[in-house]
Amino acid sequence: MPTKIETSALAETAVARCRKLATFTEERGRITRTFLSPPMRDCHREIAQWVEPLGAEVWVDAAGNFHALHAGTDAGAPRLLFGSHLDTVPDGGAFDGVLGVVLGVAMIESLGGQRLPFGIEVVGFSEEEGVRFHTPFIGSRALVGRLDEEILARQDARGVTVRAAIEEFGLNPIGISDARLRDNVLGYIEFHIEQGPVLEDMCLSLGVVEALAGQSKMEFTFVGRANHAGTTPMNLRRDAVAGAAEWIAAVEREGQRVPGLVATVGAVEPRPGATNVIAGEALVTLDVRHKTDEVRATAVAALIRAAEEIAARRGLSVRHRMQLSQPSVAMDGFLVSQVEEAVRRAGCKPHRMVGGAGHDAMILAERVPAAMIFLRTPGGISHSPEETVQLEDVAKAVEAGAHLLDLLATSPALQTRRTTRA
Amino acid sequence: MPTKIETSALAETAVARCRKLATFTEERGRITRTFLSPPMRDCHREIAQWVEPLGAEVWVDAAGNFHALHAGTDAGAPRLLFGSHLDTVPDGGAFDGVLGVVLGVAMIESLGGQRLPFGIEVVGFSEEEGVRFHTPFIGSRALVGRLDEEILARQDARGVTVRAAIEEFGLNPIGISDARLRDNVLGYIEFHIEQGPVLEDMCLSLGVVEALAGQSKMEFTFVGRANHAGTTPMNLRRDAVAGAAEWIAAVEREGQRVPGLVATVGAVEPRPGATNVIAGEALVTLDVRHKTDEVRATAVAALIRAAEEIAARRGLSVRHRMQLSQPSVAMDGFLVSQVEEAVRRAGCKPHRMVGGAGHDAMILAERVPAAMIFLRTPGGISHSPEETVQLEDVAKAVEAGAHLLDLLATSPALQTRRTTRA
Repeated sequence: MPTKIETSALAETAVARCRKLATFTEERGRITRTFLSPPMRDCHREIAQWVEPLGAEVWVDAAGNFHALHAGTDAGAPRLLFGSHLDTVPDGGAFDGVLGVVLGVAMIESLGGQRLPFGIEVVGFSEEEGVRFHTPFIGSRALVGRLDEEILARQDARGVTVRAAIEEFGLNPIGISDARLRDNVLGYIEFHIEQGPVLEDMCLSLGVVEALAGQSKMEFTFVGRANHAGTTPMNLRRDAVAGAAEWIAAVEREGQRVPGLVATVGAVEPRPGATNVIAGEALVTLDVRHKTDEVRATAVAALIRAAEEIAARRGLSVRHRMQLSQPSVAMDGFLVSQVEEAVRRAGCKPHRMVGGAGHDAMILAERVPAAMIFLRTPGGISHSPEETVQLEDVAKAVEAGAHLLDLLATSPALQTRRTTRA
Repeated sequence: MPTKIETSALAETAVARCRKLATFTEERGRITRTFLSPPMRDCHREIAQWVEPLGAEVWVDAAGNFHALHAGTDAGAPRLLFGSHLDTVPDGGAFDGVLGVVLGVAMIESLGGQRLPFGIEVVGFSEEEGVRFHTPFIGSRALVGRLDEEILARQDARGVTVRAAIEEFGLNPIGISDARLRDNVLGYIEFHIEQGPVLEDMCLSLGVVEALAGQSKMEFTFVGRANHAGTTPMNLRRDAVAGAAEWIAAVEREGQRVPGLVATVGAVEPRPGATNVIAGEALVTLDVRHKTDEVRATAVAALIRAAEEIAARRGLSVRHRMQLSQPSVAMDGFLVSQVEEAVRRAGCKPHRMVGGAGHDAMILAERVPAAMIFLRTPGGISHSPEETVQLEDVAKAVEAGAHLLDLLATSPALQTRRTTRA
């Protein structure tokens, strides 16, 4: 285990490294690093310079994911993966994704040259945000064998396919099948900023993620009749905006009523959308998330019924369209319990929570035991240049990670869990 | 008084003439006729062909308004004005405005060559809709002496000023002051489609307008904090859309609670306006109208308080901006009573109502006694190619108009009212 002083030094280095990687950008003055863009190559070279002196083996797979392997006690030892993504949203922050890769490197450093009964493989995913190809998780999909021909044929704004982008970067798409995880992975651990306000609100450094929420994305359209705002008395109106507003209140109440549910109307588009015209149509979006798919489905059904009841009472009609229904993903029970204990040993209250955003762990969990550790995000601010972390929280993450390695290295359960899921 | 058969024929002619004028358009296949556009000249020529055989004197004033004067019993007789506007919105209907001009001509025809103790002057205003210069009532402003240098300097989308447009049409802006009404106008009567659903809902042909509503146009902006829809629990949100929705419900309730008030939210613009982002801001428009300015002011104040109360309770802030506060305009009491009696004599229930839209009568009322007669508008549809009128309602309008002329010609009150207001 590293000392307090060593932990602090590792945390300071981690933050400095995130800031350093942030300088590799496609846009001067902003942090923008999309899938297989030139600054991604700079990231790979930079990280290699950190890990090669530690004796790690470094490679970039055919999907553009960066890997660094710190071997275990013997060549055939299984591997524990630490990782997250190296791409960013346009004008993003320095920590979203990157921090998980940098803390993976810190995990190797925390060993001080010691070898464990398993190797540590740090993975920097090439693509998670879905910016360039409107397709998220291209990097992690390759590790679970889901980067298929259909995705390889998708085009970016310039008409370049994923396949061509891989070739332009100097990689060979033939090797994509080799990027798939083999049967020697103990699990996947992802450190990530929370990107929300919960830990800050609870004055906690770290969160133990037990599940990633399922999500329903829908569009509702209330249809009434467009009329003149001056000449149409209140009792002769079929006002789509007034109907939509009543339903937005119902969405909020449903979110407040059901524990753990979040329900959001983020966009409202009245048509024609003029000051002096009663709207004939109002398009309203809905985003509902919960860790339990059944609870989410029940809430969505209730909100559909509410929309229909409100519309009928007001002489409106309403139609709805499901755009995305993504099941929740449970983290691995054993790994979560080990993370929980590690966080406790680091002196933190191990608060279990549900991740509300998408993460690479969601994809990795299809094939290997996965767990996530959230770090407090000041102001809940992410996807913004103002995104930051507190040094003390990063130190707690390093400490918890070191305890986790210690726990796993000595766990009697470890031997029985050395199989990647089919 | 014209016979029933003559009245029907005048009504049929009036509808056919509206359809004929609709063929003079800037856009093939649509009815679009803006201020001083080439088809406006075709309108003037066409109307002149209707009225010159009746012995009327015809001219176009320097603001582009068409005039036709059917003289009274003596040359110095005062004039009763009938009119409305000849311009249209883009892709408009055949009756909005035009019907009032065409029915003015029908009033002359209804006399069958008879002379009254007053002349009848039909005015076809050049501009009411405000399309070309984003300035409504350019035509009627000239008659009340309010077409000033500031308006003359305004530019259309091509950078042409009002002054230059007048010159391009072959008119001389020097003459604008001559367009101002002189001290010999008895009053102004405007027939106009209701552009609303009230008369249809009450199964009435005609409405007697006693006032044109005052109007407040405002913008409210609710400000909260933009956050991730997946990672921000309901209790930690400052959701601008949810706050705006609660307030929209309050706007509707206020409109329903206060007799005669209409209150409308026609536009809502959340920012950033994405499905998966809790809106940090929501801009909402407000349109409030009532015949009594004090009632309208009280309602607006109540809605401002409601917005502030809702915002405070939700940890939001709200700012508001008054864009327009236009007082109501009362129609002339004597003229309204005469119109009411004329409508009754035409066999219609004389329903008094408030006009909710803007009309030339609003401007004329600044200088002369003014009144309006609304015609039922099927479906309340206006500003649309589907705008129409029922022939029987047009016949009732002709009949009521003829009764009105009869009433005014024999009114003892007439002699005392021959002054244009200062």
